Amino acid sequence: MKSFVSVPQNSDFPIQNLPYGVFSTKADSSRHIGVAIGDQILNLAEIANLFDGPQLKAHQDVFKQSTLNAFMALPRPAWLEARARIQQLLSEDCAVLRDNAHLRSRALVAQSDATMHLPAQIGDYTDFYSSIHHATNVGIMFRGKENALMPNWKWLPVGYHGRASSIVVSGTDLKRPVGQTKAPDAEVPSFGPSKLMDFELEMAFFVGGPENELGTRVPIEKAEDRIFGVVLMNDWSARDIQAWEYVPLGPFLAKSFATTVSPWVVSIEALRPYFVENPVQDPVPPAYLHHDDPFTLDINLAVSIRPEGDAVDHIVCKTNFKHLYWTLKQQLAHHTVNGCNLRAGDLLGSGTVSGPEEGAYGSMLELSWRGAKEVPVGSEIRKFLKDGDEVNLSGVCEKNGVRIGFGECRGKVLPADI
Amino acid sequence: MKSFVSVPQNSDFPIQNLPYGVFSTKADSSRHIGVAIGDQILNLAEIANLFDGPQLKAHQDVFKQSTLNAFMALPRPAWLEARARIQQLLSEDCAVLRDNAHLRSRALVAQSDATMHLPAQIGDYTDFYSSIHHATNVGIMFRGKENALMPNWKWLPVGYHGRASSIVVSGTDLKRPVGQTKAPDAEVPSFGPSKLMDFELEMAFFVGGPENELGTRVPIEKAEDRIFGVVLMNDWSARDIQAWEYVPLGPFLAKSFATTVSPWVVSIEALRPYFVENPVQDPVPPAYLHHDDPFTLDINLAVSIRPEGDAVDHIVCKTNFKHLYWTLKQQLAHHTVNGCNLRAGDLLGSGTVSGPEEGAYGSMLELSWRGAKEVPVGSEIRKFLKDGDEVNLSGVCEKNGVRIGFGECRGKVLPADI
Ligand SMILES: [Ca+2]
Ligand SMILES: [Ca+2]
Ligand SMILES: [Mg+2]
Ligand SMILES: [Mg+2]
Ligand code: NI
Repeated sequence: MKSFVSVPQNSDFPIQNLPYGVFSTKADSSRHIGVAIGDQILNLAEIANLFDGPQLKAHQDVFKQSTLNAFMALPRPAWLEARARIQQLLSEDCAVLRDNAHLRSRALVAQSDATMHLPAQIGDYTDFYSSIHHATNVGIMFRGKENALMPNWKWLPVGYHGRASSIVVSGTDLKRPVGQTKAPDAEVPSFGPSKLMDFELEMAFFVGGPENELGTRVPIEKAEDRIFGVVLMNDWSARDIQAWEYVPLGPFLAKSFATTVSPWVVSIEALRPYFVENPVQDPVPPAYLHHDDPFTLDINLAVSIRPEGDAVDHIVCKTNFKHLYWTLKQQLAHHTVNGCNLRAGDLLGSGTVSGPEEGAYGSMLELSWRGAKEVPVGSEIRKFLKDGDEVNLSGVCEKNGVRIGFGECRGKVLPADI
Repeated sequence: MKSFVSVPQNSDFPIQNLPYGVFSTKADSSRHIGVAIGDQILNLAEIANLFDGPQLKAHQDVFKQSTLNAFMALPRPAWLEARARIQQLLSEDCAVLRDNAHLRSRALVAQSDATMHLPAQIGDYTDFYSSIHHATNVGIMFRGKENALMPNWKWLPVGYHGRASSIVVSGTDLKRPVGQTKAPDAEVPSFGPSKLMDFELEMAFFVGGPENELGTRVPIEKAEDRIFGVVLMNDWSARDIQAWEYVPLGPFLAKSFATTVSPWVVSIEALRPYFVENPVQDPVPPAYLHHDDPFTLDINLAVSIRPEGDAVDHIVCKTNFKHLYWTLKQQLAHHTVNGCNLRAGDLLGSGTVSGPEEGAYGSMLELSWRGAKEVPVGSEIRKFLKDGDEVNLSGVCEKNGVRIGFGECRGKVLPADI
């Protein structure tokens, strides 16, 4: 399939992708919902009337909102109908847009002219801890090889509540946080900028579909109806703040200063060709977490760092999303098994994605093995992040000559305010 | 000071209180902002035009919203002006409402005719752990007397992110959650309804004022500008689910099935007469947490249980909010020291409030000492909560013949859905 919109070679956004985002332009500062195609954005607010199928005819207003929440909240058949319609409208065989220069000029916006915003109002943000290589690495570092994985880890997808207010979109710079830290040999804690600033390579999915009423769970057979789409996520972390604060109630200020997501939400439909067999789970988890259909995503992930003044990104980690032990469906079913209500726009993070080998670790904590090793970054070396470092995440799926990607998930570390 | 609205003896809501809430009625199902006075509600939407002072004249629309968020987001001088105006309008000396029967009939609604709703859209919910008696009790039970308090506990107000979507208003019944639990001697976890269902007696405050931009902190000298008002909160907890899931990232499904708050937000201005000296903090915390002005609240708290079919509430705990080690200002300053942005409507819980002696413990976990003791509840006994148990929290301040209270914070445990 091809689009009449020309799609540059190696673009993340061919007609097979069609991710949703929220953008504004200099000419129009109000936020609109758009779909990325090549280096353009299709402004859905301008073509809302063209969604005239049975699912969407009565809901065209969702495309005129300033966030994706209302569209996400529609049931899955509406998402499928929207995607099919957009793919049709952008295909080279369809005249509706292709041959209507006036409509095209209103509905197509260059990405270079657009500012991207958070795709949704995020009601609640949860972060899981679902990569077995990451959990094992962290466990070895902090508890030794014998007790690396906690007893609960293979029985349930461990997760915790994160801070929603400080989630920002790619391109937002962030200050190094200050806070209390305590060196192992110090008698009392000290106060100042974090010295162990880190990224976490993650992906996250936005919840969609009608809210499950508080007290009702989403059975795993229905979990896919609640998974709208996926983004890249950098869960910035201050390791020294984390070490001092996190026992017994979990990470708090070590994470809540900023979390960066990519602006383009790639739908499960676009990702469907890239599902592969799930990892074997031993022990077999309880029935509410059991599913056989492949829901593990083969997505090539990378992290790069660009030191201040450097002209290029230097890759420090290459891994794959398929290393996740728990599937997105299992995360969602677990999250609601106690009756917790999930709302459209909620964000569920995967946890740091690490592969089995060095170089495939999704954090500086692991890459530098807690500071014991030096990680080359171009002509420099790093153990943790320095001020001025710009971190970018990337994700790409490739199969049968089709390549879809996630765009950028970028942020720069600014010096702390003391 | 007296109101022309007659206030029943022992009402929680004399003219000195004037808490804000959101209500609807059978006759008008849309949500309106109101103020409790005696057994009535003053509907602020109906008198919005009377807020004609310098702070509010241009913001009367905030009183016509369906949540308190917009009003909360105004700067503190606007809150003070609103309170002064409402107190004036309700006083026996002011003719505006008193002598206008038509306006009174529109603006005053019987609480018995009203349904209360959540006071605000809660963007993020944080729960602290600020009672030293509670933290010590839990520590002794799970780690022994020597290591009862974690090394960080006296240096910073330990807290964690909670689930905002499952916060419900008093009167909402809740199902016992199901989930994974593992008895200490069991080889593998089991799945089913929680057997150790508990309440946690807490108070919580709503954040107000303009948002601090991400990356900027709220200095403790300015913390009061961001504390809008206080409610009662029951942080329902499933102890067996918690024990199995919470290491290393903190409580998750053990808490996220429901959290109940009282509907009436009592302002800091109303609480001002009840501030008492802060507890001595040893060690002295870092400067960003330091303040000398009394900001510890003397509020008598109680928890009652009413078993299914019983006609009365039976008190199982009496304590006081002044037992909190960390003040609300310290909680807020700590929360933002890393640059985390707090938005109007965010909710910050105190943590379980326990006093120093048995009978003053704010959870069944402590009252039954992890199930080792039987707690009398009327003619029955309890170690944890049974299906059908209705739990209510109360809070009352008394001084110089004036008594203000928080109303009810009630919820009933329904059987689990298997
Ligand atoms: Ca993470
Ligand atoms: Ca609590
Ligand atoms: Mg983060
Ligand atoms: Mg709770
Ligand atoms: Ni009305």
